[in-house]
Amino acid sequence: MGKLRVAIVGASGYSGEELLRLLLQHPKIELTCITSRQEAGKPAGSVFPRYRECTLAFSKPEVDEIAAKADVAFLALPHGLANEFAAPLLDRQLKVIDISADFRLHDPKVYAKYYKTEHPAPDLLRKAIYGLPEVYREQIRPASLIACPGCYPTSILLPCIPLLKAGLVETVGIEAISLSGVTGAGRKVDAAYIFPECNESVRPYAVTGHRHLPEIEQELALAAGQTELLINFIPHLIPVNRGIHSSILLHAKANCTEETALACLQQAYDREPFVRILSKGQLADTKHVTMTNVCEIGCAYDARTKRLILSSAIDNLTKGAAGQAVQNLNLMAGWPETTGLL
Amino acid sequence: MGKLRVAIVGASGYSGEELLRLLLQHPKIELTCITSRQEAGKPAGSVFPRYRECTLAFSKPEVDEIAAKADVAFLALPHGLANEFAAPLLDRQLKVIDISADFRLHDPKVYAKYYKTEHPAPDLLRKAIYGLPEVYREQIRPASLIACPGCYPTSILLPCIPLLKAGLVETVGIEAISLSGVTGAGRKVDAAYIFPECNESVRPYAVTGHRHLPEIEQELALAAGQTELLINFIPHLIPVNRGIHSSILLHAKANCTEETALACLQQAYDREPFVRILSKGQLADTKHVTMTNVCEIGCAYDARTKRLILSSAIDNLTKGAAGQAVQNLNLMAGWPETTGLL
Amino acid sequence: MGKLRVAIVGASGYSGEELLRLLLQHPKIELTCITSRQEAGKPAGSVFPRYRECTLAFSKPEVDEIAAKADVAFLALPHGLANEFAAPLLDRQLKVIDISADFRLHDPKVYAKYYKTEHPAPDLLRKAIYGLPEVYREQIRPASLIACPGCYPTSILLPCIPLLKAGLVETVGIEAISLSGVTGAGRKVDAAYIFPECNESVRPYAVTGHRHLPEIEQELALAAGQTELLINFIPHLIPVNRGIHSSILLHAKANCTEETALACLQQAYDREPFVRILSKGQLADTKHVTMTNVCEIGCAYDARTKRLILSSAIDNLTKGAAGQAVQNLNLMAGWPETTGLL
Amino acid sequence: MGKLRVAIVGASGYSGEELLRLLLQHPKIELTCITSRQEAGKPAGSVFPRYRECTLAFSKPEVDEIAAKADVAFLALPHGLANEFAAPLLDRQLKVIDISADFRLHDPKVYAKYYKTEHPAPDLLRKAIYGLPEVYREQIRPASLIACPGCYPTSILLPCIPLLKAGLVETVGIEAISLSGVTGAGRKVDAAYIFPECNESVRPYAVTGHRHLPEIEQELALAAGQTELLINFIPHLIPVNRGIHSSILLHAKANCTEETALACLQQAYDREPFVRILSKGQLADTKHVTMTNVCEIGCAYDARTKRLILSSAIDNLTKGAAGQAVQNLNLMAGWPETTGLL
Repeated sequence: MGKLRVAIVGASGYSGEELLRLLLQHPKIELTCITSRQEAGKPAGSVFPRYRECTLAFSKPEVDEIAAKADVAFLALPHGLANEFAAPLLDRQLKVIDISADFRLHDPKVYAKYYKTEHPAPDLLRKAIYGLPEVYREQIRPASLIACPGCYPTSILLPCIPLLKAGLVETVGIEAISLSGVTGAGRKVDAAYIFPECNESVRPYAVTGHRHLPEIEQELALAAGQTELLINFIPHLIPVNRGIHSSILLHAKANCTEETALACLQQAYDREPFVRILSKGQLADTKHVTMTNVCEIGCAYDARTKRLILSSAIDNLTKGAAGQAVQNLNLMAGWPETTGLL
Repeated sequence: MGKLRVAIVGASGYSGEELLRLLLQHPKIELTCITSRQEAGKPAGSVFPRYRECTLAFSKPEVDEIAAKADVAFLALPHGLANEFAAPLLDRQLKVIDISADFRLHDPKVYAKYYKTEHPAPDLLRKAIYGLPEVYREQIRPASLIACPGCYPTSILLPCIPLLKAGLVETVGIEAISLSGVTGAGRKVDAAYIFPECNESVRPYAVTGHRHLPEIEQELALAAGQTELLINFIPHLIPVNRGIHSSILLHAKANCTEETALACLQQAYDREPFVRILSKGQLADTKHVTMTNVCEIGCAYDARTKRLILSSAIDNLTKGAAGQAVQNLNLMAGWPETTGLL
Repeated sequence: MGKLRVAIVGASGYSGEELLRLLLQHPKIELTCITSRQEAGKPAGSVFPRYRECTLAFSKPEVDEIAAKADVAFLALPHGLANEFAAPLLDRQLKVIDISADFRLHDPKVYAKYYKTEHPAPDLLRKAIYGLPEVYREQIRPASLIACPGCYPTSILLPCIPLLKAGLVETVGIEAISLSGVTGAGRKVDAAYIFPECNESVRPYAVTGHRHLPEIEQELALAAGQTELLINFIPHLIPVNRGIHSSILLHAKANCTEETALACLQQAYDREPFVRILSKGQLADTKHVTMTNVCEIGCAYDARTKRLILSSAIDNLTKGAAGQAVQNLNLMAGWPETTGLL
Repeated sequence: MGKLRVAIVGASGYSGEELLRLLLQHPKIELTCITSRQEAGKPAGSVFPRYRECTLAFSKPEVDEIAAKADVAFLALPHGLANEFAAPLLDRQLKVIDISADFRLHDPKVYAKYYKTEHPAPDLLRKAIYGLPEVYREQIRPASLIACPGCYPTSILLPCIPLLKAGLVETVGIEAISLSGVTGAGRKVDAAYIFPECNESVRPYAVTGHRHLPEIEQELALAAGQTELLINFIPHLIPVNRGIHSSILLHAKANCTEETALACLQQAYDREPFVRILSKGQLADTKHVTMTNVCEIGCAYDARTKRLILSSAIDNLTKGAAGQAVQNLNLMAGWPETTGLL
C-alpha cells in the first residue's frame, strides 16, 4: 500500500518550515505539495538550503491542486486565512490539520471579540477537534478537522489540566507568565523583530488581552468543569530563537502539596511519550526541549502563600506547532503516536 | 578644596567593575584605592582594557590601607564578607556604602533564616540605612552606613511602593515575576553560567525562597504599614548580559484603575531623575535602560480579573547596584543626586 | 557666547540615534533640530524612551528650516540622499558632517562603479575632507564638508596606515577579514535581519565588491604613496548588536617583526585619545570598546609565513559612525577633541 | 544477529553528549557503556534531561569494563588522555574511534612541538587513520583506530582539498579565517567562557600557533602532494552555541575561475551525502547546517586580486566531531554511511 500523501499549505513561514523538517523525515508519508505565494516556483532546497535534497517546488496555494495531490493537508497560514482552505478541502474529503488560530475557539462570539471579525464558518468551529493529544486523543483519531493548540496554550494547559481535573487547585487566581523566543512571532518582517531590537532586550506585551488568552481559558474551564474561568496571562518576548517557558501560579487547595501535585502530574503523564515530569526540586529549562516534541514540567510549592508554582518548557515550533500537528496526524492515521517524532 | 577620596573594596567583580566605570567619570571624587584579592598588583587597565587610562593598581583589601587612602568605601563583596570591612572602616570614621546583602535586613533572625548563619554584627543592622533614594532620601543624607538594595528588589519596590502607600492595592496576593541577565549572578565561574548553558535557554530558579525575597517583603510591609507582608517572587535567568524586567501582579482595590495607578506613580516620581513612568499602554523594555541609572515603569489593568500589572526595567549593574550606590554617595556628600550619572 | 546650534538630519536610524545619544550629553552644543520623515511630529522621547527627557520633536527634513535653526548639520542618511542636503546647506553657510558614503571617494568614476549611478555633485567630492582625525586632523579643522569614514574602513585603516607609511609591510597581498554586528546594516526592516535569521548564525557577504572596498583601497593607497592598491575585504555578519572586529593579514618586509610593528603603532598613536594599542600577545575584543569612541589594536607576527596579523575592534556606531562624527565636530569647532566623548 | 555494542568514553562533555544524541537514535547499535569520572553513578537522563528515556548510567572509565561491554569505543576525552584508553582497548580487540587530537598527526615531532609533550604511543600514530570519510573512505573501512579530524580542520580541508588535488590553486599563500561557536571550547568552566564574557563579544585567539594548525597543514600538504605546506589560520570565538564558518583565501592559478572552482567542487562531492556545494553567488551560513552532519561550501572569485574565496560551514559538534565519528563507524561496520545521521 502506498504512503499517505501530504500537503503543507503555507510552507515558508517558521511553522511551515518546521513541518517540512518533520515531514521530510516521517517514514509513513509522502510530501506531495508545498505551497507559498511568495516562493511559488522555487524548489524547497533553494529557499531552505538545509533541505536541499528535497526536490519539491513551492506552488501557489490552489484548492484543486492540493486536493488532487494530497490526502491530508496541514494549514500553516496566518489566522483568518485557514478557513479559505479548510472548508473546500474538507468538501473534497481531505483531512485538515490547522496550525492557525482559526478553529480553536468553540464560541464564535469569543472569536469575534478577540479577532475583531465575525468567524466565517461557525459550523466548522463546532466540527473542529482541539488537537491536544494528551487530552483529546480519542476525539482526534476519527476527526477530519483538527485545530492545533497555540504555542503558549500548549505550555500552559499541559501542566494545569491534570491538577484542575483532580481538584487540587482553585479555579480562580491562576496566573500564567510566559516567555517566548522570537520565532513565536512568525517570520514577520517588522521593525520590532529585527535583531538589534530583540537582542539584549526583554519585554512583556499584550498583557491584558493576548489572542491566546480565550483559548487557554476555554480549555482550563473545560478541565475544571466550569462554563467560565478567568486567568491572567502575561507573555514576554525574550532573545532566543526557539522555546517557550511558562511559570504558572495556582492556589493550592488544602489537600495539595508539592508531593501530591507531582504525583498527580506523574500519574496523568506516566505513559505519555511527549510529556516529561521533572523530579522534585527541578524546574523546566527550554534548552532541554528545543528541537523536540517534548513538554517538560516541574513543580514547586510555596507553603507560606499556599501557591503552587508550575514551570513548563516546550519548543514553540515543535510541540507548540508543527510537532504537535504531526502527533495529531499519527493519531488520525492510526500509526504509533511517536512516528517521525523521535 | 580637594576631591572626596573613594575606595572600591572588591573591584574586580561585575558590580565592582561598574563602580569603576561610574567613579572614573565622576567629577567630584578621586578614586584612590581599588582592591581585589585575585588581581592584586595589576593595574586596572590590564585587567579591564576598557579602563586602560586608569593607572591605579589593584591592592589586597587591608582595612588600614583603605582607611588611610579613602574617605568613603564602596563594598562590592560577596555577602558575608562585607561585615569584615564595614565595622572597622566605620570605626575609622569612613562612610561605607555596601552593595552586598549584608545589611539590608533589619531583623537578624530573618537574616539567619535566609543566609543560614547568624548575622555577625546585629548592631550594624540597626544602624544601616536601606539605600533606596526615592524612598529613604532624607535618612540617607546623614547616614554613615548604607545597605544598597538588591537588583531584583529595586525593580520590584519602585513600582509597588507608591501604590501600597496610597492604598490602591491589596497587600495580599502580590506576585513578582522577574527576568535577569547573567551578570546578575556575578562574575561566577560555574558550569551553569558558561555561554552554551545560558544562551538559547530560559529557566526559573529559587522560586520559593530566593535571598532577595525577605528584603522585598520587608520594604513592601513598611510601605503598607504592616509588620508582615508575603509575596511570591519568581526569578528567571535569561540570555542577556544586563537588565532585569519584573512583571508584578497586584489586586487592585475598588478605587484603582489603570488611570489612577498611573497618576499615583506619576505623582510619586514626578521629580525623580531616575524613574521614568511610561505612558498609558506602554510597558517597560530592558533595552531602554541598559547602561543607565533609570528605572522604567509601565502599568496595565485587567478589568476582568481586577489585577494591576506593573512592568519595570532596570540595568541590574547600574540602578540595581553600582549606579544606585553612586546616587547614595551623591546624597551623602550633598551633591546633586545625578552627579556623574547622566 | 551661546552654544553651537546643531542639527541631525536623519535622526531615527541607528547612527542618527547614536548621534542623539552623544550630542545630548555634549557640553558645548545645543541640539536644535532633528529630522525624520517617518517620525515627523513625534517627540524624540516617544520614539526613543531612553531619551525621554529630550523635548525636541522630529521634523520633516527641510533645508530652509535646518539652515534657520543650526550652524552645523550632521547627515545620517542612506547613501545617495546626503547630497540633496549637503549642497544647499553648504550654500547657506552651514558646516556639514556627513556619515553616509556620499562624499568619501575622491574619484567620481569609482563612485559610479560601486554605487551604480553617477555622482550628483563631483565638485563636492573634491571639496570634502575624509574625516579620519588620526590621519587628516589638520585638514579637518578648517573644512566645511566632512565625509566620515565607513565603519569597516575605520577598523581597517587605523591599524594599517602607520605600517604602510613606515614601509614595514608590502602593499600587495593585504587581506582584511571583518566581522560586524547587526546594527551595521542600519535599522533595516528586511527578512535577512530579523532576529531568528541572525541569531545562531554567521555568514560572509559581498566578499568581492562591498561598497566599503574602494574607500579602504583609496586611503591605503594614499598612505602607501601609490595611485592604486588592491586588497581583499571579506565582511561577515555576526549576532551581536554593536562592534566590528577586523583581522588583517599583511606581508611583513624584512625589517618588520612583531616588536617593530608594535613600536610603529605605539609611536603613531601615542597621543591619540581614541586609539589603544594592546600589549604584545594581546588581541582586540569588541567588548572592550562598545559604547566608546576607541579603536583597540593588537598585533601578532607569524615568523613561518612572514605575515603580520593585525586585530582591531571598534563600536561600529561610535568610532565607526556617530562618535567619529562628533570627534570631527570638536576639531572643526576648536574644542578639545574628546569633548563629550569620554 | 545482535546489534553492535558501543561505548562512549567521556560522555559528559559537549562532544560526548552529541555522541549520546546521535547514538541513541542509531538503528544499528546498542549503547552499552557511557563513562564520566564526574557523573559516575548517575543515570544519563538525570544529567541530561533531554535524554531522560535513556536508562544507562555513567560509570567510571575502566578499560576492562568497557572491553567487556562493547565492540567499539568512541573516545571523547581531552587530548593527552585518549592514548590511555586507545592502546589497551585495541589490545582487547575493540575498534576505537577517537574524537580527541591524540592520533591526528603522523609525525611525533610535530605532536611534541604543538602539544608540549612527547607522544606516548608513536606506533599508534602510524596505525591511526585520519577519519575524514570524503578523503580516506577506503582506508577507514578496515581500520581499527580512527583519529577523527578536528572541527576547524574539517571546515577547512573539505573545501580546499579538491582544488589542491586538481592543481587549480597555489600551495602558498593560503589563509583560513575561522569563526567558532563557544561549544567548540568544550564544556570548559573558565572565566573566559561565562556568558557575559562571550555574549556581545568577538575575538581572535591563538592566531600564530593553534593546535589545529599542524593538522590542517599535514592534510593540505598530502592533498597537494608536497612534504610541507604552510598556511595562516586565524580562529575567532563568536557568540553562538554551535557552528563554525571558515573563509579561506587561495591564489587561483591561471586556469581557475569561479566556474572552474565550483565545477571542481561539485564533481568532487557530487555523490557525497554530507557535503553541499552552493550555487554560484551563494556563501555558507552556519544556520543552514546546525544539528546536521553537513558541510556547506560556497565559492567566490575576485578577478582583481586573483584570489579564490571559499566559504564553508559545519556544526562543530556534528560534522566537526560526533557526527563525523558516527559516519566513520558506519563505514567501519559496512552500513550505509548515512545510517542514523539523517
